[in-house]
Amino acid sequence: MTDKLSTSDAFSKDFKLSRYIPTPPSTPPDLAQWTQVAELKQQTREKNLSKYQSWRLDQIPSEDVLDVSQLVLSKLSERERAIVHLDATAITAAIREREYTAVEVLIAFCKVTVAAQDTTNCITEIFFEEGLARARELDEHLQRTGEVVGPLHGLPVSIKDHILVKGQDTSTGYITWANETVAEKDAVVVDILRKAGAVLYVKTANPQTLLCLETNNNVFGRTVNPFNRNLSPGGSSGGEGALISSHGSPMGVGTDIGGSIRVPAAWSGLYGFKPSVARMPHAGLLGSHDGMDNIVGVVGPLATSARDLELFCRTMLQYEAWLLEHAVLEIPWRAEVVEGKTLPKRLSFAILWDDGVVKPHPPLVREMQRAKKALLAAGHEVIDWQPLEHKEAWDLIVKLYLLDGGQEYRDTLKMSGEPAVPGTEWILSHAAGRPAYTVPETWKLNLERESFRARALAHWNSTVSRTSTGRPVDGIICPTAATLAIPHDQTRWWGYSSHWNLLDLPGVVFPSGGRLNPGEFQPVERVEPRNALEKEVWSLWNPETFKGAPINLQLIGRRHNEEKVLAMLNIVEKAMKA
Amino acid sequence: MTDKLSTSDAFSKDFKLSRYIPTPPSTPPDLAQWTQVAELKQQTREKNLSKYQSWRLDQIPSEDVLDVSQLVLSKLSERERAIVHLDATAITAAIREREYTAVEVLIAFCKVTVAAQDTTNCITEIFFEEGLARARELDEHLQRTGEVVGPLHGLPVSIKDHILVKGQDTSTGYITWANETVAEKDAVVVDILRKAGAVLYVKTANPQTLLCLETNNNVFGRTVNPFNRNLSPGGSSGGEGALISSHGSPMGVGTDIGGSIRVPAAWSGLYGFKPSVARMPHAGLLGSHDGMDNIVGVVGPLATSARDLELFCRTMLQYEAWLLEHAVLEIPWRAEVVEGKTLPKRLSFAILWDDGVVKPHPPLVREMQRAKKALLAAGHEVIDWQPLEHKEAWDLIVKLYLLDGGQEYRDTLKMSGEPAVPGTEWILSHAAGRPAYTVPETWKLNLERESFRARALAHWNSTVSRTSTGRPVDGIICPTAATLAIPHDQTRWWGYSSHWNLLDLPGVVFPSGGRLNPGEFQPVERVEPRNALEKEVWSLWNPETFKGAPINLQLIGRRHNEEKVLAMLNIVEKAMKA
Repeated sequence: MTDKLSTSDAFSKDFKLSRYIPTPPSTPPDLAQWTQVAELKQQTREKNLSKYQSWRLDQIPSEDVLDVSQLVLSKLSERERAIVHLDATAITAAIREREYTAVEVLIAFCKVTVAAQDTTNCITEIFFEEGLARARELDEHLQRTGEVVGPLHGLPVSIKDHILVKGQDTSTGYITWANETVAEKDAVVVDILRKAGAVLYVKTANPQTLLCLETNNNVFGRTVNPFNRNLSPGGSSGGEGALISSHGSPMGVGTDIGGSIRVPAAWSGLYGFKPSVARMPHAGLLGSHDGMDNIVGVVGPLATSARDLELFCRTMLQYEAWLLEHAVLEIPWRAEVVEGKTLPKRLSFAILWDDGVVKPHPPLVREMQRAKKALLAAGHEVIDWQPLEHKEAWDLIVKLYLLDGGQEYRDTLKMSGEPAVPGTEWILSHAAGRPAYTVPETWKLNLERESFRARALAHWNSTVSRTSTGRPVDGIICPTAATLAIPHDQTRWWGYSSHWNLLDLPGVVFPSGGRLNPGEFQPVERVEPRNALEKEVWSLWNPETFKGAPINLQLIGRRHNEEKVLAMLNIVEKAMKA
Repeated sequence: MTDKLSTSDAFSKDFKLSRYIPTPPSTPPDLAQWTQVAELKQQTREKNLSKYQSWRLDQIPSEDVLDVSQLVLSKLSERERAIVHLDATAITAAIREREYTAVEVLIAFCKVTVAAQDTTNCITEIFFEEGLARARELDEHLQRTGEVVGPLHGLPVSIKDHILVKGQDTSTGYITWANETVAEKDAVVVDILRKAGAVLYVKTANPQTLLCLETNNNVFGRTVNPFNRNLSPGGSSGGEGALISSHGSPMGVGTDIGGSIRVPAAWSGLYGFKPSVARMPHAGLLGSHDGMDNIVGVVGPLATSARDLELFCRTMLQYEAWLLEHAVLEIPWRAEVVEGKTLPKRLSFAILWDDGVVKPHPPLVREMQRAKKALLAAGHEVIDWQPLEHKEAWDLIVKLYLLDGGQEYRDTLKMSGEPAVPGTEWILSHAAGRPAYTVPETWKLNLERESFRARALAHWNSTVSRTSTGRPVDGIICPTAATLAIPHDQTRWWGYSSHWNLLDLPGVVFPSGGRLNPGEFQPVERVEPRNALEKEVWSLWNPETFKGAPINLQLIGRRHNEEKVLAMLNIVEKAMKA
């Protein structure tokens, strides 16, 4: 067992209240100034990177080099290559067994991080020295006591930009916050990571507003996908997607209110987990709409193995996060459920082939077919999931995202004079011309939300009439988005990810189908579009466009059943790998 | 084991959405009309009661008869008297053992209900025949099968007016809703009660707006305390308080967003339990501000024993309420915790002697002293609880109650032209002249709420430095209000009850000190008031005023620890009865 956190150390939001609620400036901004802020911010990052010149690539590849995923490993020794290909569970075991030191592990990941930044533009704040000091301390501790400080002893963990890390800036993709938001305190998740022995060394890019499934902002620019730089690594935790899939980090912390952990995991070929609201600590995040709780986001892990997702969750709850943050549910982690001990032998899965709005692109349909075949072969049941009003669900959740008509986003941009990036323009267009809702109007929207949740619960329950197990289906398999990693600024449909936020159901994303080989698909395959949205999304379909894009699936479970979702993931992976 | 509910039967809020959001009338109301609605409603109730003329008191006592608590039993046989003095657990056992039939149990309680109505004005809707039909059905079922249908087989349960009971009006203390709100569906809590074998037969009074700790409305008038009719039975679940303390019901269902279960339990000498938000089903309630979730109420039981509180909670979760209502937390009931199996042998309690705003009246201070002595004698630890900003907490929660500036309440009254009762005037005075908040303003209030919760969590954690157990205190003992059952329309301070709603901590109220004997106290005892509120509350203090008022205490636990709270209650009761 590890030490418990100081129990008087509960996280207070006072800090944010006093500093981070932006008020529009009273004088018109100098339009030249915002670019200077961005330049300064990027110069600082470059200056930090330049300390590690020997770790940088000998030559930055030209723009037409699309796949940089191997290139980023080119400065590593064989031993370092081995390290960065381990998952977090294996790394912590190897450090515990003194196969590797925390210092050499961190250096290996830092080397790749430098290269990943130079090729995909995925990081924001760099604090390798602080990480190395902590790694040395941990190595000495293990040497001296023979004990690890916690379950993550020596594990490098990367942190999404808007999550507070003491001493680091929290610009969060806003010019006006850049250099003005150095955190005085760690977020609760960061606090626990440190106590558990994790080594922090880098923060990663997120998009302007955070309300975007790609990653682009005026502070640091656009983050690209290491497997195909014409494609997005996803967002809003896209810096994590690009960094971890480059092997620059074994585990990252993201956040998800509409797909922001799962989409970057899917588009970057990673594992990503969105738990139910309030199962993991969530206090200590900087973002717009702080205090809005009509629809709430979650913190969760991105990693390179299913077991690492559990390692993250188990660690958070081992430290009794509910004693540090009021909102966290006191539901201790049920490891025996993840181990499958309580799982029925024969499971019943439903596949969501098509949400009724935008049919998924061919590689995703093929992947679901493969999952079905594998699960049937393993003796499980597979039925079709009847989609429940994905368009209506989107229309509702986007109102909840923009209750103030988008005013706070616009005000925050106006403070610095920075323009909206395309992703921001697109999401704000959903509230174009609409004033902020009144308080009673928000109550009606909440009722619509609860009504939708009630219908969805009944809908899931009703599958009992279509299964042979005597139970409703255990889980739903579906894509994370209608496309694989998308060409930049083209994201138009969140209905395969935000749907599960509206319903607050846990969802895990996992790489199952490798990376796209265009030769396996017909370039001319088309659907007869049922609507303008589907037409637009399908106009993108061309296998060459998506060359090298990872093929992932998503598995959805019932609320508060995080452990069962991970247990089912083990079953699905076993079947699909058989 | 009992049957599970139909899993496709999740509760939908659609019904309420379409019918119950009032819109102000376009024409000025006829001021005469509202009294006609009230007359009609009361005549209907009287007509229903008149069917049971032989059960009514031979003579309605005159107004100067203050204590009617024995009188209401005067029409009962010895056997019936024995029945109505049993708690719910004993009743269900006796029916299961065929000592009593469900029919004779119900008739005993109906007899008292009739008398309780004639003496305290505590009920709204009467459906004895429906109850008797169900009781007969249950008796036949047990006779035929030898099995009970569920854990509440044959138990009469009374339901607070604003909780939907299929086929019954839900006037909820509003003239405009009277006769217009016949429920098409049961609330989830009612649904489970029925499936568990409970027998429904009566609904009970709540105040206009529900946001009142007394019980008075223009539809049915004022509800009074059976132990002293000059006093209030509390509110908003005050009909339950008066009915159950009269022995007209063994168990009632109330709701609590500021003290509305606990205050009537305290002022009526009963057990009452406010669980954490979302541990018990809550869907299917009619009230103003539907959809508001900045501060949320809960459903909970009022009863005559501690074990009955558990019976209620255990039953709700045995039927997997989370499969019927999305919001309910999937935390199964932990009976072993209630049994004390996980409880440390030596507990540490903190006593909140004075919240720093209004010092409790002398009988409550004496009762806490008695609790302290008893707990110390039983080997437990008792320290002082340092109150945390009760005035600030109240100022915040009352803003959350009235985010729209009280507009919806006023609009609902305006629709019928009925006047505000004094309790409504008092609560609405907190938003007098203030417009509705804007959406961003509500976000800031939510942040203040979270900040307060964070400070309170740290505050509780920090007691570890003052205990000898190595743990923070296990529970807090305090009054439920600064006074015993109060003279009508005098309630001015919610700080001992609403504080725990703001913090979402479970709280149980229990009768510990019998009923007030004025001879035991000095009439002239006074405090030097620290503020106008304290002056006002203490100007009421005179032992004669509170003659016969029950003396109860409140026990607060940590969030989501309902089972531990009930386990600690057993310890406290055992110590105080020793």
